[in-house]
Amino acid sequence: MTPRETTRLDRRGFLGAAGLAGAGLAATATGLRAAPPAAPDPLITTVQDWARTLGDGVQARPYGSPSQYEKHVVRRDVEWLTASRESSVNFTPLHELDGIITPSGLCFERHHGGIAEIEPGKHRLMINGLVDKPMVFTVEDLKRFPGRQNHAYFLECAANSGMEWRGAQLNGCQFTHGMVHNVWYTGIPLKTLLDEAGVRTNAKWLLAEGADSSGMTRSIPLEKGLKDCLVVWSMNGEALRPEQGYPVRLVVPGWEGNMWVKWLRRIEVGDQPWHQREETSKYTDLLADGRSRRFTFVMDAKSVVTNPSPQAPLKHKGPNVLSGLAWSGRGRISRVDVSLDGGRNWRSARIDGPVLPMSLTRFYVDFDWNGQEMMIQSRAIDETGYVQPTKDELRKVRGVNSIYHNNGIQTWLVHANGETENVEIG
Amino acid sequence: MTPRETTRLDRRGFLGAAGLAGAGLAATATGLRAAPPAAPDPLITTVQDWARTLGDGVQARPYGSPSQYEKHVVRRDVEWLTASRESSVNFTPLHELDGIITPSGLCFERHHGGIAEIEPGKHRLMINGLVDKPMVFTVEDLKRFPGRQNHAYFLECAANSGMEWRGAQLNGCQFTHGMVHNVWYTGIPLKTLLDEAGVRTNAKWLLAEGADSSGMTRSIPLEKGLKDCLVVWSMNGEALRPEQGYPVRLVVPGWEGNMWVKWLRRIEVGDQPWHQREETSKYTDLLADGRSRRFTFVMDAKSVVTNPSPQAPLKHKGPNVLSGLAWSGRGRISRVDVSLDGGRNWRSARIDGPVLPMSLTRFYVDFDWNGQEMMIQSRAIDETGYVQPTKDELRKVRGVNSIYHNNGIQTWLVHANGETENVEIG
Repeated sequence: MTPRETTRLDRRGFLGAAGLAGAGLAATATGLRAAPPAAPDPLITTVQDWARTLGDGVQARPYGSPSQYEKHVVRRDVEWLTASRESSVNFTPLHELDGIITPSGLCFERHHGGIAEIEPGKHRLMINGLVDKPMVFTVEDLKRFPGRQNHAYFLECAANSGMEWRGAQLNGCQFTHGMVHNVWYTGIPLKTLLDEAGVRTNAKWLLAEGADSSGMTRSIPLEKGLKDCLVVWSMNGEALRPEQGYPVRLVVPGWEGNMWVKWLRRIEVGDQPWHQREETSKYTDLLADGRSRRFTFVMDAKSVVTNPSPQAPLKHKGPNVLSGLAWSGRGRISRVDVSLDGGRNWRSARIDGPVLPMSLTRFYVDFDWNGQEMMIQSRAIDETGYVQPTKDELRKVRGVNSIYHNNGIQTWLVHANGETENVEIG
Repeated sequence: MTPRETTRLDRRGFLGAAGLAGAGLAATATGLRAAPPAAPDPLITTVQDWARTLGDGVQARPYGSPSQYEKHVVRRDVEWLTASRESSVNFTPLHELDGIITPSGLCFERHHGGIAEIEPGKHRLMINGLVDKPMVFTVEDLKRFPGRQNHAYFLECAANSGMEWRGAQLNGCQFTHGMVHNVWYTGIPLKTLLDEAGVRTNAKWLLAEGADSSGMTRSIPLEKGLKDCLVVWSMNGEALRPEQGYPVRLVVPGWEGNMWVKWLRRIEVGDQPWHQREETSKYTDLLADGRSRRFTFVMDAKSVVTNPSPQAPLKHKGPNVLSGLAWSGRGRISRVDVSLDGGRNWRSARIDGPVLPMSLTRFYVDFDWNGQEMMIQSRAIDETGYVQPTKDELRKVRGVNSIYHNNGIQTWLVHANGETENVEIG
């Protein structure tokens, strides 16, 4: 199948490339001989710019950074969303990324008291409460425990897509779904440290506390802490980034993001939840009748089409690649369906790359676009059989008072000119 | 099992943490009440620095960077190694990393004419030679082809560990083994583009050409190009880095690094190899009798212990974690053996994380160190049954004239004080 624009571009591009050879550049490298182009070609100059002169050598950047032509690929915030940037959030540019791993420099940020700049040699992690032996560990101590593990897990803020409950339509998947990232973590099971301290038989809950100025605290069931929580010091192969909890953070696979306490300084063992501020006045789902859902820890199956999307419109008719991400806090993604007509007809997407439990999963649909208007949706199904609901199905059950746990199906309207917008359909 | 230092640190650390609570910080956050410390504790001040004041808010760094305390984690070069930095190499800090993925900013660099700073909108990829229809593609064209794929592959320079042939002993795995990295790539099979252009029946070889000022060119058997080579534009989820070939590079899984042509501008199809400079005067293995091994494409199974190593000595007796990396250009790693006594006794290492074909694989050995001198070695076995050889076994066959394809077993001598050095043993 030949992309139509490709064919059109071939001729122009080929002249350019031939001219490039004629200019002696390809000749130098390969001995290729080609006649100079019939007419001057703009490509000749632009190619010469980077092929005629020496570029920067090694060590120009001992720690590398993206190309000057990728400056638009950044985290972005919404200034009206919060009163201050020290207690605020920004968003991962999902529409600019591919595969399943989020680059560390682009993982969305959520702070409640700004980024703690911790000197790792002076940081301590305390285990106290209902334990036989309260303990305090240095970061170096943690790295000496047996059973070190590596896992890729998604972290999603409970408020991700929260502005969509009442139909606010932020124009871009970065803003509607960008409070999620997916990272490789290196660390040890929290169970290893709890076993070290000796958890008392009447223990039922854990309190995780951060060392930042907000002293973020969340209550976590002991059962989850013993099952798969990790104490980690590394993300994507290198040390945690400051905004992600350097030097130590808690990983709570599949559960809402603010339980993954950053700058982790203390785990207290108790027999009941603490009902801290960030699990009562915040991170609680207020229902239509004024009651609240208590402790909605798990992030249910969800998906979003990242391309096309409002920040990444369609530019060409003919062959195109639709791409997106799916994830579930209950395990692996088993299938992703995509609709181009607002949910009337569905096709299964092609899932590529590793399908890991509680990790972002990448899907593609290779399709031809003839310029017709489209209503693009995606629907995730996880290995428990759970099917991602529509927003209306969610609203029927949960009302529109909450800002948390909106995993409803998102709709992108693609216009005939390729521009794409965030819309609500019945 | 209790790390001995941990127990010692507990008391001191616990006082510090209690003092921290007494200082009212933990109290603010958790309601925890604790008596002020009996004596002033150094931790109080240092903790207060980051817990008492607001840190940077979101968007302080739209594209994030590592902590100020991680400035030592960088690529490093060896100035005497090459005449200029535009045609030189630097090294991945393997001893500072964990897991299997190399952060993009720390992937070693190898340039032959410096870093081409290519404007992606003006870049073209030409397919010419023995094809029915020569074609030129823009980067946007490439992203519209069906069948986009994601794979993690190691890239190793053929000269990695080359200075070890004659027993030069650079003091650190960054320098002895750091010309390797492991990255997630997103792109399309090269076969897709060759099929588009229509490869003639007499075609047998491909020439890959780069758009940098060195016009790097390598001959690649057509069979390999059709089997698993990729044309990629993304690494670790984001655009390729300039020093890694932005905007387009060739991926040649399991084969020597300089065939993975960066800044890829042309694929020529031919009926025989071109014998370019970088595959004759360079990247050819000179044997003891003066003859050369022709086209040694595959990188054989290899491994290295990254911790402990000369740049990462042992600091504590008692529990420690030995860690390292193994890889094979012929497929998956099936086992890694580790010796602590210079190869007399071996134990199988614990492999953690995904074991992917032609990808770095992470291994660990949890061990207790009583302070005795150790001769640490690792030995990789791949799924074909190939066993990583000793350096002497390699020298018997290949002599010491070559600088390429040294996959011999590395030895680290750990002294009683924990300092570690690169040594040769019989």
